Amino acid sequence: MTSSFEIVHKSQETSARLGKIHTAHGCVDTPAFIPVGTQATVKSLTPEDLSHLGVQIILANTYHLYLRPGHDVISSLGGLHRFMHWAGPILTDSGGYQVFSLAKLREISEQGVTFQSHLDGSSHLLTPEKAVQIQEALGADIMMCLDECTPYPATHTEARKSLKLSIDWARRCKESRRPNRGSLFGIVQGGMFQDLRAEGAKALIDIGFDGYALGGLSVGEPKEAMLNVAAFTLPLLPNPLPRYVMGVGVPEDLVEMVSFGADMFDCVVPTRHARNGQLFLRTGTLNICNARYRTDERPVEAGCRCYTCTHYSRAYLRHLFTAKELLAHRLNTIHNIHYFMTLMTEMRAAIRKGRFALFKRDFYAQRRP
Amino acid sequence: MTSSFEIVHKSQETSARLGKIHTAHGCVDTPAFIPVGTQATVKSLTPEDLSHLGVQIILANTYHLYLRPGHDVISSLGGLHRFMHWAGPILTDSGGYQVFSLAKLREISEQGVTFQSHLDGSSHLLTPEKAVQIQEALGADIMMCLDECTPYPATHTEARKSLKLSIDWARRCKESRRPNRGSLFGIVQGGMFQDLRAEGAKALIDIGFDGYALGGLSVGEPKEAMLNVAAFTLPLLPNPLPRYVMGVGVPEDLVEMVSFGADMFDCVVPTRHARNGQLFLRTGTLNICNARYRTDERPVEAGCRCYTCTHYSRAYLRHLFTAKELLAHRLNTIHNIHYFMTLMTEMRAAIRKGRFALFKRDFYAQRRP
Repeated sequence: MTSSFEIVHKSQETSARLGKIHTAHGCVDTPAFIPVGTQATVKSLTPEDLSHLGVQIILANTYHLYLRPGHDVISSLGGLHRFMHWAGPILTDSGGYQVFSLAKLREISEQGVTFQSHLDGSSHLLTPEKAVQIQEALGADIMMCLDECTPYPATHTEARKSLKLSIDWARRCKESRRPNRGSLFGIVQGGMFQDLRAEGAKALIDIGFDGYALGGLSVGEPKEAMLNVAAFTLPLLPNPLPRYVMGVGVPEDLVEMVSFGADMFDCVVPTRHARNGQLFLRTGTLNICNARYRTDERPVEAGCRCYTCTHYSRAYLRHLFTAKELLAHRLNTIHNIHYFMTLMTEMRAAIRKGRFALFKRDFYAQRRP
Repeated sequence: MTSSFEIVHKSQETSARLGKIHTAHGCVDTPAFIPVGTQATVKSLTPEDLSHLGVQIILANTYHLYLRPGHDVISSLGGLHRFMHWAGPILTDSGGYQVFSLAKLREISEQGVTFQSHLDGSSHLLTPEKAVQIQEALGADIMMCLDECTPYPATHTEARKSLKLSIDWARRCKESRRPNRGSLFGIVQGGMFQDLRAEGAKALIDIGFDGYALGGLSVGEPKEAMLNVAAFTLPLLPNPLPRYVMGVGVPEDLVEMVSFGADMFDCVVPTRHARNGQLFLRTGTLNICNARYRTDERPVEAGCRCYTCTHYSRAYLRHLFTAKELLAHRLNTIHNIHYFMTLMTEMRAAIRKGRFALFKRDFYAQRRP
């Protein structure tokens, strides 16, 4: 079953909108944050932990699962949902991003990209058709087209060449998809150039997808450039379909992108920061290994209702982290995901009540200068 | 409040007995297995996980907590129970075992043992009085006397000298304890020598403790020697008080020790094996990283009712372990602790029904030859 999107409410003050994505594995309230479960697990958490945190959809990385344990293995075991015991919607990326960031000896051709596994050096060819085939084998609810994530910086010529390739690959993805499988989203590239972003959006809309994503952001460009590209490009995407900003971001980014009309985000920030001891607060972040927390009996954030803040002191979390205890990662991850989920819940409530501009003002007012 | 011990039922066929330890933090059904929470956490699990697994009491290591974060820190934060959010009974060791196994440059005198921290090389003096003081500061329900864990092998002369020291230290521990704190257990040493074990038991009984432990086992001696020492020494300990075999053991050891009349055990086996991918089965163990499990959709053990076996395949657990995912440790630990808790529950039921000998026969019949 292909997913469908329903817009429940539109903000009058900004471009923010409240929606619902309906999938074969349940609904996702948007704007939605999608925690990253790279290797068929959101690091340190069980699916029950995720559900308790209010997570409705997770992302899995096609590149990683293709290499290990193999999409064939997962498919033979009943698909990714069953394999990892997650009953909710799953979005998979195309594998392209990791081919360009993790794999060795990449060679791009019209046909696709040849790369060597970062695990064992084995050689593989990823084509648009293969990317769709793998995602279908995994049983993804939402699949992404294979694209080339244009690096930053890139000249107009480079970005244009890269965009052309991504558009060609997107067409082949669409042609190769099988009926009654997951939705397929196109990814708008184009670097930091408005004309290319517009050209990319138009070309993908002409091909026709179930949703549209912005790619090539959060790749090292200045924050302002990222926000400018999003603010320019998001309105060019079809209003009735979901708009997904890939790889974004920190809380400020999410608030801005929602105000531009984005519906979905994925990012490793909450989970990776947790494993590095960086915990999110309404005022900013806190580094739990700081010596000042040695005897601090307060929770990470006063008033936070997450499991971690309800039961543990900063002193205990600092101890676990300093002692390199496994539980540190879990408790930190629970807090950070809770923070992100709460942020999204509050944004959705603000949109529903027509108070998103007010929410945004309050959000920034709480940030530490 | 000092703990008390109640014998509920005695096996007629063996020396096994069913009991209850009452502590200020709740009851413990015996024979009991005590998971090890070295650094104020049973690695990878929350206290709620432990409760769901039926764990009633945990062990924390005084040596580790004294060095990091410091017993003073834990005490200032309300004690170990509050620090780690575990409301049930806690048993602490004296710190002696880790001083002899982990610390650098140990020097033993009548006064105590001087050692260098394995963490930062700082120098410390652990005396019997200090060991009790630390355990009281932690708020342990059951405290252990400082002893010297006699190494294996040791000559009769060495073992005797070591035993004398442990007895002297035990007396000083008893003298230094404060009223209305945790129970204090003596530890019988004496190496592999029956006369020394008997001498040790008698001397400690003369001093008088709330319970008695066998130390110096599972230190490299042959299995038969360990069982012989336990079979010989356990009956010498006061019948109405709890008998604790320290650092033991694998399932076979537990079954044998229970039949000799032991009431309590602690061991890192279930948790450490879990982190090494060794999972316990009724028939023996299974190494989850074995390639044969790559596409094995069965649970670790058919019929096992633990969270891990209820929801995940061997193939998924192998994938998590191979991919070095944090969740691997947690799911493996849950299974292994469940196995140990179930084993203890079954032994207690067998004792209650007067069928412990039958249980033991069945237990061995299921082991893979």
